[in-house]
Amino acid sequence: MTLNNHEYWMAKAIQLAQQGLYTTHPNPRVGCVLVKDDQLIGQGFHAKAGEGHAEVNALADAKQAVDGATAYVTLEPCSHQGKTPPCADALIKAGVARVVYGMQDPNPEVSGKGLAKLKKAGIEIIGPVLEAECEALNPGFIKRMREGLPFVRVKLAMSLDGRTAMESGESQWITGPEARLDVQRLRAQSDAIVTGIGSVLADNPSMTVRIDNNDQDADPKSVRQPLRVIMDTALSILPEAKILYPAHQVCVFSVAEEVEPEHQDVLCKKGVTVRFAPRGEDGRLDLLDAMEQLADLGINEVLLEAGAELAGGFLQAGLVDEIVVYMAPKLLGSSARPLFTLPLETMSEAVELTLTSVSQVGQDVRLVYLPSYLDEDSEEDDDE
Amino acid sequence: MTLNNHEYWMAKAIQLAQQGLYTTHPNPRVGCVLVKDDQLIGQGFHAKAGEGHAEVNALADAKQAVDGATAYVTLEPCSHQGKTPPCADALIKAGVARVVYGMQDPNPEVSGKGLAKLKKAGIEIIGPVLEAECEALNPGFIKRMREGLPFVRVKLAMSLDGRTAMESGESQWITGPEARLDVQRLRAQSDAIVTGIGSVLADNPSMTVRIDNNDQDADPKSVRQPLRVIMDTALSILPEAKILYPAHQVCVFSVAEEVEPEHQDVLCKKGVTVRFAPRGEDGRLDLLDAMEQLADLGINEVLLEAGAELAGGFLQAGLVDEIVVYMAPKLLGSSARPLFTLPLETMSEAVELTLTSVSQVGQDVRLVYLPSYLDEDSEEDDDE
Repeated sequence: MTLNNHEYWMAKAIQLAQQGLYTTHPNPRVGCVLVKDDQLIGQGFHAKAGEGHAEVNALADAKQAVDGATAYVTLEPCSHQGKTPPCADALIKAGVARVVYGMQDPNPEVSGKGLAKLKKAGIEIIGPVLEAECEALNPGFIKRMREGLPFVRVKLAMSLDGRTAMESGESQWITGPEARLDVQRLRAQSDAIVTGIGSVLADNPSMTVRIDNNDQDADPKSVRQPLRVIMDTALSILPEAKILYPAHQVCVFSVAEEVEPEHQDVLCKKGVTVRFAPRGEDGRLDLLDAMEQLADLGINEVLLEAGAELAGGFLQAGLVDEIVVYMAPKLLGSSARPLFTLPLETMSEAVELTLTSVSQVGQDVRLVYLPSYLDEDSEEDDDE
Repeated sequence: MTLNNHEYWMAKAIQLAQQGLYTTHPNPRVGCVLVKDDQLIGQGFHAKAGEGHAEVNALADAKQAVDGATAYVTLEPCSHQGKTPPCADALIKAGVARVVYGMQDPNPEVSGKGLAKLKKAGIEIIGPVLEAECEALNPGFIKRMREGLPFVRVKLAMSLDGRTAMESGESQWITGPEARLDVQRLRAQSDAIVTGIGSVLADNPSMTVRIDNNDQDADPKSVRQPLRVIMDTALSILPEAKILYPAHQVCVFSVAEEVEPEHQDVLCKKGVTVRFAPRGEDGRLDLLDAMEQLADLGINEVLLEAGAELAGGFLQAGLVDEIVVYMAPKLLGSSARPLFTLPLETMSEAVELTLTSVSQVGQDVRLVYLPSYLDEDSEEDDDE
């Protein structure tokens, strides 16, 4: 595939947007370049909520007058006042002649409004350009805007024989250092890390991000930490669990009637947020409800790092958008713990996946799959 | 890596040798080119036991006088009379000036003798050249010559969650057509296909090769069929099992004292060969003994297509040389059957593997591993 001129500059804007991969939460990653006479005259990206949007940063970066220039921006410029003034206004004021956009705003309430405002001001509009690539920058933001749910990525570290831990629970380390660094990258780009009380009790993990924007080792306190979320139906987490520190970055989901009020008090006094979800049909905590609550909190991308039980629950609830598997070159044996708790009886019930990428990461293999959910309406009657 | 002149011509000889991949059994795959004044003047490969060796075929192919030429041959020319006369003599008689060899004969009884004979006749000897690549042509022949055992390749078709069949045994088809064609290629290059009575009773497979030398669909009767071997401790295979036809290509291993003589008679009358192996330390059929018997029969490469029990047994016996996994993009669930029956308790017992290749085959992923066996001497004392 050769890139045409518009695609060339949009690819440049996408590269810029990626610099905000770990930090724009809860905003989308956006990049912008300003081009005049086939020369780049300004560039910018959105780095952090409350700070300048990509377009405004590119205008500020411009080395010469912007009037008559073309602005390439990965996402439709906003038309509404948020924490910062609308970008459409800034582009109009700067006198750009043309706006090439990557994708429309996924928020149905404002989608198209920014483009309409620009057009009304006499600016030529071209797009979408490299739409799929621009969408790939923000799977979580897009899903949250369109469906009111976060994008859920399940991370699994397993042996070749599909085991995640020994029967005893022993699991450190299945995969190698390169795969573990890659998991750090997944954490850093997530808005929330979700795990289950089983994993917390078994491994007492901290679930922190320990890399900076350049993927170098960093003090967890110096980098943005995703919200840590624990699914804990009976609120049985111990106050001294490592994952609760610092407490203001933690949220525990429980079922109200199972919670001991005294224990809740202890946790709340430490600053831990306890949220309630109803019971689902299967009697367990309703994961869909919990995910809707997270979306309402502005959580775009969730990284699920959990055991077979919770991972199986997300899968059965149809909440999984992507499965990232790190497969280690070893066999843990047939009494070791399975990947997903997923009781299926016939091949026709098997969960079908679509492979989207395979690569080698150190001595491990990294596989990315999309689940294709079975029709939930189709119920089969089994005689006997 | 750039190839020097010798490597260039040896690579050509290796390509020729590969044409015998499916057919030279029990002989090795060998290729030969004759070069004079930097021009290829003759080429040949060994196609089938009893027919001409690579060197003789290359000499017969020569378009001009061979005297003064250089012969490139992937394996040291033989010096002994077999079904055909010694190749060393043929090269001497033809007047070649130089022999470049890929690897020495792996048979310790004759290794180096062919080269010595050539040298004594005044021929210049150069080598080994591209030795690892030449060895890769004949992993089974080499292992049989050096260790008295066949090279055992385990083929596994599994889901992402490491399952080979549903709990019921249902398993058709986990992988896609491309992966199944690839398995046909593995079968075609094997001297024997080994399976267990469990798989025979569950699936009644025919385990035949159904492709020709060009990987096109073929009638099983028209192509070389590997020996089909069934591990069947109590000789409980039914005379009508598909895998027994045609009966002269079948061998069943049993433990003598478990066999019902009448049933053995029925099978023998059909032409099936029944061989006995002692019980191993674990009370089951001794797989090492069975493999030694196969090596004595001239079996170079074994393809093990078995369930978790037998595959686990081979692995625990240290008999597996290579694991080829086809991993399908689906989840069969946690009650489905495991990859290997391998009861391990701690991570330190995990079987370590080395990944040698990853590729995509249709929608499946193909992974090749070498097992690194743990010291069998190291026994750990667990208190309590």
